Amino acid sequence: MVLSGGFAATSATIISGAVAERIKFPAYIAIAVLTTSITYPVVVHWIWGAGWLDAIGFHDLAGSTVVHSVGAWSALIIAYVLGARHGKYDRSGGVNTIPGHNIPLGALGVLILWFGWFGFNSGSTLSGMAAVEITIIATNTALAASAATITSMSCSWFKFGKPDITFTLNGALAGLVSITAGADVVSHIGAIVIGGIAGVLLVMAVLFLEKTLLIDDPVGAISVHGVSGSFGTLAVGFFALGDGLFYGGGAGLLMAQVIGIASVFIWCITFSFIVVKVVQATIGIRVTQEEEIEGLDIEEHAMNAYNI
Amino acid sequence: MVLSGGFAATSATIISGAVAERIKFPAYIAIAVLTTSITYPVVVHWIWGAGWLDAIGFHDLAGSTVVHSVGAWSALIIAYVLGARHGKYDRSGGVNTIPGHNIPLGALGVLILWFGWFGFNSGSTLSGMAAVEITIIATNTALAASAATITSMSCSWFKFGKPDITFTLNGALAGLVSITAGADVVSHIGAIVIGGIAGVLLVMAVLFLEKTLLIDDPVGAISVHGVSGSFGTLAVGFFALGDGLFYGGGAGLLMAQVIGIASVFIWCITFSFIVVKVVQATIGIRVTQEEEIEGLDIEEHAMNAYNI
Amino acid sequence: MVLSGGFAATSATIISGAVAERIKFPAYIAIAVLTTSITYPVVVHWIWGAGWLDAIGFHDLAGSTVVHSVGAWSALIIAYVLGARHGKYDRSGGVNTIPGHNIPLGALGVLILWFGWFGFNSGSTLSGMAAVEITIIATNTALAASAATITSMSCSWFKFGKPDITFTLNGALAGLVSITAGADVVSHIGAIVIGGIAGVLLVMAVLFLEKTLLIDDPVGAISVHGVSGSFGTLAVGFFALGDGLFYGGGAGLLMAQVIGIASVFIWCITFSFIVVKVVQATIGIRVTQEEEIEGLDIEEHAMNAYNI
Repeated sequence: MVLSGGFAATSATIISGAVAERIKFPAYIAIAVLTTSITYPVVVHWIWGAGWLDAIGFHDLAGSTVVHSVGAWSALIIAYVLGARHGKYDRSGGVNTIPGHNIPLGALGVLILWFGWFGFNSGSTLSGMAAVEITIIATNTALAASAATITSMSCSWFKFGKPDITFTLNGALAGLVSITAGADVVSHIGAIVIGGIAGVLLVMAVLFLEKTLLIDDPVGAISVHGVSGSFGTLAVGFFALGDGLFYGGGAGLLMAQVIGIASVFIWCITFSFIVVKVVQATIGIRVTQEEEIEGLDIEEHAMNAYNI
Repeated sequence: MVLSGGFAATSATIISGAVAERIKFPAYIAIAVLTTSITYPVVVHWIWGAGWLDAIGFHDLAGSTVVHSVGAWSALIIAYVLGARHGKYDRSGGVNTIPGHNIPLGALGVLILWFGWFGFNSGSTLSGMAAVEITIIATNTALAASAATITSMSCSWFKFGKPDITFTLNGALAGLVSITAGADVVSHIGAIVIGGIAGVLLVMAVLFLEKTLLIDDPVGAISVHGVSGSFGTLAVGFFALGDGLFYGGGAGLLMAQVIGIASVFIWCITFSFIVVKVVQATIGIRVTQEEEIEGLDIEEHAMNAYNI
Repeated sequence: MVLSGGFAATSATIISGAVAERIKFPAYIAIAVLTTSITYPVVVHWIWGAGWLDAIGFHDLAGSTVVHSVGAWSALIIAYVLGARHGKYDRSGGVNTIPGHNIPLGALGVLILWFGWFGFNSGSTLSGMAAVEITIIATNTALAASAATITSMSCSWFKFGKPDITFTLNGALAGLVSITAGADVVSHIGAIVIGGIAGVLLVMAVLFLEKTLLIDDPVGAISVHGVSGSFGTLAVGFFALGDGLFYGGGAGLLMAQVIGIASVFIWCITFSFIVVKVVQATIGIRVTQEEEIEGLDIEEHAMNAYNI
């Protein structure tokens, strides 16, 4: 129950990143409640509650899809309806970077998440596992995260001329999200390949969202959790030892993974669109431009975040 | 021994919050040493060391009273003797808010405490427990903290017009402190009710201390640990499955809880008053007004906390 | 594998502290890769891989020498070749303090390390241990860290007139590093004595490096990990129950410890000197003076660390 509640809260937390710095606090609370009480439990039932996706063989150890994609696809549609932050996009089509306020604190947050992920993945089974299985899961988690850190850093270095710290930090998270579905069924090499690809996809996804879709996601949550989560779930179909396509298991598992990814995407986009539209029509979702420029710490919570 | 040392250190840490920003560092060290070597061990002996409170049936799983109230009631009398920070109270009777320097770091601290509390409560037994009991304790811990977060936020919202972030953060801690006494003996519903009430009491207690008693507690430590700790200990008398008043157990346990809460209060207030008066008379307890305005990071430790 | 990778990463992280604020990022990456793939594994093989130091009876539970000294002695020679930060030393021979940017975040880092150390030391055995042994290790870890915190604070207070916060924080780490070699074989009194001495040595080592050797180590990593690590390893020869000199075990273990400490020092200094010279001759190791003054967050990673 603690675990399940924590997982649901993760979905809501993912949304909070994507809608930050312009959403009304009551609107966010309403969205968080509806996401954790309806959007998320439906998917849990399908996949972990002996539902129809479980029945067709869909595999998701600790929630690449159940937890991370649910949060991210909900965030995608909510951030789209909410619109970009003031100053993010010029009238002339230019895209501006709005820098984070405290990069060292952000880096610490990523390291705390990485640490917690060992428990998150290793503890995500209700059956007793032999210690050796927990060891494999923990090792795969570390390998995928490390590979993704390296590839996302390299990719940002290649594209921008300097190794970008926020892309690197988000890359680490992308690796962790991507291995969450299959940490128990892939080999160590598989984990490295999955994480490595996830790190590259992360950089591409952030840029695609920001520059092509023009969706403003202040912390890259949609790319980190949605793209990496769906990719990691898909990768199980290829890399699962025994059942995966690359290991002679045929396309059965892969098909189940594709169906699961697509179904969860459609469910989350559809239901969250209804949620955000209802919230918008009733209590409103966006602070005023003045409040946004003044800062939500002051306007929504009557307090400066920093008094240094 | 690690656990016990950590618990004693917690009592001293609680005091550090309430006396911050005006106490002399050597005075604080003296008080911390006397609290952890005398005030706290006496109570541990009474309650966890087969002492007289243990004999009458007093129940405190992980220290709502033993750890948290001991720190808070000691802090109460020390903060009273120490007096308020310069600028906290106007001559005309006005109460000024002195804002925290770094709210995100404070929020991180609360989350780290919340995380640690799962070990704190679940590990607070020297007998081997079945895994199911640890699960119940961890779940109750999460439920009480969540309930208190919601009620303290709502309560601050109702009173001040905006959901206050420091009241909400302290509310989470209040919920954790309140469930520390009875996490092993109350139901999940009981945990939610206990935490929910603790969140409301927290807001009332902070305002009562600040505006009525005129005791300046910069981080709300006395309210978080003393009021929530005593309330949580009292709640065991009502909510304990089997022995609690609400579950047909009669008033026996409730009486034991009341006697324990009162005895610990009297002991801590009395002995800590002697401690602080002795320290005041010998090495002094308060920095000069100039040192206080300049900042204790510079005056007491020769270093600016921030050089950003 | 996770554990071993984490240990190797620790060595590289130790180096990062000593070379901070003036090293080129690609040079640091190259050094980190060579340290974790060559310098560190050689020592692991000698000591934990049934190599020649293991054969003569050298004892290092969790890496006072294997992990901490390897990182620190490599850092020593690299920091020496790299040279001091601009402004650290005057032409007239004066030594300037360059203050840390965020002391509370640094303090949090030390507390997180302290917390992690319980797992680091207690989990550093591949054989199943009885719970009582883990308890002894955890208790010794806490005692040594606490003793070192007190002695380093006292020592800085005595020397500078005020208890210095960074010496105190580094003192806590020095205590943790010092007990890492022998937490499983020394008594609780032994742990307190080892940690207590390590705290004093830390203050002396930092001043010796900074003022006598004129080696600029921004965070004191060489002293914390090298001096405390070597001292802690040496102390096993004196304090080990049964085999130690103070417990009637003769000088055999002590000799093995001395040989191990010296061998690892010579290996790390020699090989890391080659590493840093090769990196210097190929990709260069130092940013320009303009880049250093502007800040490496901006020049190396295109981002301000703080936008508050």
